[in-house]
Amino acid sequence: MDSIIQIPGGVCAPVGFTAAGVHSGIAKNPDKKDLALIYSSVRATACAVYTKNKVKASPIAVTKAHLQDNMAQAILCNSGNANCCNADGATVAEQMCEIAAAKLHIAPEDVLVASTGVIGQPLPIAPIQGAMANLVGKLGPQGSNDSAQAIMTTDLAKKEISVKFTIGDTECHIGAIAKGSGMIHPNMGTMLAFITTDVAIAPAFLQEALTAVVDDTFNMVSVDGDTSTNDTCVILANGMSHCPVIDAVGGNFDTFLIALMYVCIYLARMMAKDGEGATKLLECAVSGAPDEATARVLAKSIITSSLFKAAMFGADANWGRALCALGYAEAEFDISLTEVSFKSKAGEIQVCENGAGVPFSETVAKKILMEDDIEILVNLHQGEGSAVAWGCDLTYDYVKINGDYRS
Amino acid sequence: MDSIIQIPGGVCAPVGFTAAGVHSGIAKNPDKKDLALIYSSVRATACAVYTKNKVKASPIAVTKAHLQDNMAQAILCNSGNANCCNADGATVAEQMCEIAAAKLHIAPEDVLVASTGVIGQPLPIAPIQGAMANLVGKLGPQGSNDSAQAIMTTDLAKKEISVKFTIGDTECHIGAIAKGSGMIHPNMGTMLAFITTDVAIAPAFLQEALTAVVDDTFNMVSVDGDTSTNDTCVILANGMSHCPVIDAVGGNFDTFLIALMYVCIYLARMMAKDGEGATKLLECAVSGAPDEATARVLAKSIITSSLFKAAMFGADANWGRALCALGYAEAEFDISLTEVSFKSKAGEIQVCENGAGVPFSETVAKKILMEDDIEILVNLHQGEGSAVAWGCDLTYDYVKINGDYRS
Repeated sequence: MDSIIQIPGGVCAPVGFTAAGVHSGIAKNPDKKDLALIYSSVRATACAVYTKNKVKASPIAVTKAHLQDNMAQAILCNSGNANCCNADGATVAEQMCEIAAAKLHIAPEDVLVASTGVIGQPLPIAPIQGAMANLVGKLGPQGSNDSAQAIMTTDLAKKEISVKFTIGDTECHIGAIAKGSGMIHPNMGTMLAFITTDVAIAPAFLQEALTAVVDDTFNMVSVDGDTSTNDTCVILANGMSHCPVIDAVGGNFDTFLIALMYVCIYLARMMAKDGEGATKLLECAVSGAPDEATARVLAKSIITSSLFKAAMFGADANWGRALCALGYAEAEFDISLTEVSFKSKAGEIQVCENGAGVPFSETVAKKILMEDDIEILVNLHQGEGSAVAWGCDLTYDYVKINGDYRS
Repeated sequence: MDSIIQIPGGVCAPVGFTAAGVHSGIAKNPDKKDLALIYSSVRATACAVYTKNKVKASPIAVTKAHLQDNMAQAILCNSGNANCCNADGATVAEQMCEIAAAKLHIAPEDVLVASTGVIGQPLPIAPIQGAMANLVGKLGPQGSNDSAQAIMTTDLAKKEISVKFTIGDTECHIGAIAKGSGMIHPNMGTMLAFITTDVAIAPAFLQEALTAVVDDTFNMVSVDGDTSTNDTCVILANGMSHCPVIDAVGGNFDTFLIALMYVCIYLARMMAKDGEGATKLLECAVSGAPDEATARVLAKSIITSSLFKAAMFGADANWGRALCALGYAEAEFDISLTEVSFKSKAGEIQVCENGAGVPFSETVAKKILMEDDIEILVNLHQGEGSAVAWGCDLTYDYVKINGDYRS
């Protein structure tokens, strides 16, 4: 397997992609970019996965409709307003595509659209109309940073990555931007992720790769247990690397899958670590489960437990709450063989064996849990199933941020 | 239907019951009572319901075993230690019963046992042994208050109630103490509730009444989504009112059921309102659902949403989060007919109709949400199913309490 190397460029790292982000006026703060555009110089194969919430924001229906032919050329996204639960939501989402398409001289059906922000407040089209010329004019190979900024809401860290790898003898690229923060929970945990690549791939295989990777990454992230109404993960593959077309499993498909997994794990970890108010990244690895489905449910249950998350905020080795969260998860397994350890760069400590506590140094445990990145290692000792889930601690700031989000 | 009247006395209000609570030394604070005893002067018909968590504290197995004959005479409960996930847990729980039984001159099998507190730390028997003579000596008709104090952990308010009602021409009584606070979630949301009554009732009907009432009360309370390892709700019915024996449905059974419901709704509301860190009681009433099961799932989903709970803390009428929580609940219904209103003693305001926002006064909404008791009224307009769930807001103090619970 050839290596995957991180490179600069974000969504513009793959050949043929440009991006931009501007302040249109949806956000009150004039310094906050709130409108992002990603553009491919040629039509690209395109796929997406969406929230499973029954309440779906209006842009999702429009994006779905525009993806019926599995082709697209641009992604337009605003922050500051979710365009969800509004009577005129579908009309506004369509208008957004039309306005962008007119300036880009492409078909409206080749524009995908997404929104993020507060639910239930009408999204005015005027700021978007007014900003479009400027936004399209700013499209450029250095624009990924601005586009990543423009899709942020309560995110503190910009989420952007790009990698290179080879398919056959051809250098290929994947770039991505994402936003996460609150209302992040399986399925799916992404809020928004826009992925670009210059590989050439048949639509069915692009969808298969995206679905598989999202399942192991964004769907294994939880910040607060709330599944958003707007979650969307889109990938555009424009083929401009001129690599051999990926149209079969194995070989090049696997190479692409692994590179995509690398990108999405990176973003999933960033989303968890930048969860609203978070001070710590929690990575829970469950092994020895009867099967993978069980491992997934259990890993998610631990990183979703408010009590466990609060304990991690306090660097308190309260492993009983981890066991409790395993116990109420909807899964069939034998709790009595469970082993639990905490691990960070400060060391590793076992706290539970055979489902019961073992004596351990609270001082050492505290030192391990004072670090920013905490691994919770759970071995059920009853099979080969394993899974990893990512989350964050529950803090005062989570409450502060969400106590008055709309102000 | 005769009326149900609140009276003083707690678990000692029913004829033949005494109670006591003392500090044994399990709790570090010498002023904190940590050991409670409830005693019936005659053997009583007894039933219980327990946590559905796979991780069950050791006292649960012992109580279950002692209830095989549906008879008991005493309940012993300690706070400060959950006696859960300990290698010697079952032995200690049995010892607790033996020690109490010896002093009470009854069979160990007639003592039920419960524990609450931190998980995974061995529970020393010595303090319990040392305190038992004093505890039994203090048993008396005024002891309910002390016993209610003794089962509290992070509870701020003592949870105690008693009522009188008539069966035929006989005055009967139900009394109860409970603890709630954190780790409260369906099923079951009680943590601990100990109910006494002097009605005469056949075991099967006592169990049927308890299960039905718990389902509509404690199982509809959520503080933080975590289902405890120790939840136990026990009822003792000693028959000392000498009312006609309840051994059929309808009539007297219904009278008893309604009185028991009254007691448990009162305690469920107290638990929600006294949720860890809570400043507000949230009562979500879902109506117009296709069926009751759907209404239950949806009501619970709203009062469990961290985002919605944080918004309520901030008195922010962010109804979109309520819709979002409906949308990700595991239930089949049409979201597009949904109507949402907020209500408190300051007034009522509609914020959503047909699944979309309606214009409303933020000032009026804020005034309504600044109150302590908030009702969230959801009408799905698609059937006759309804349900009520109770929860609380998510606050800084929840995080503080749970960030370092073990210290």
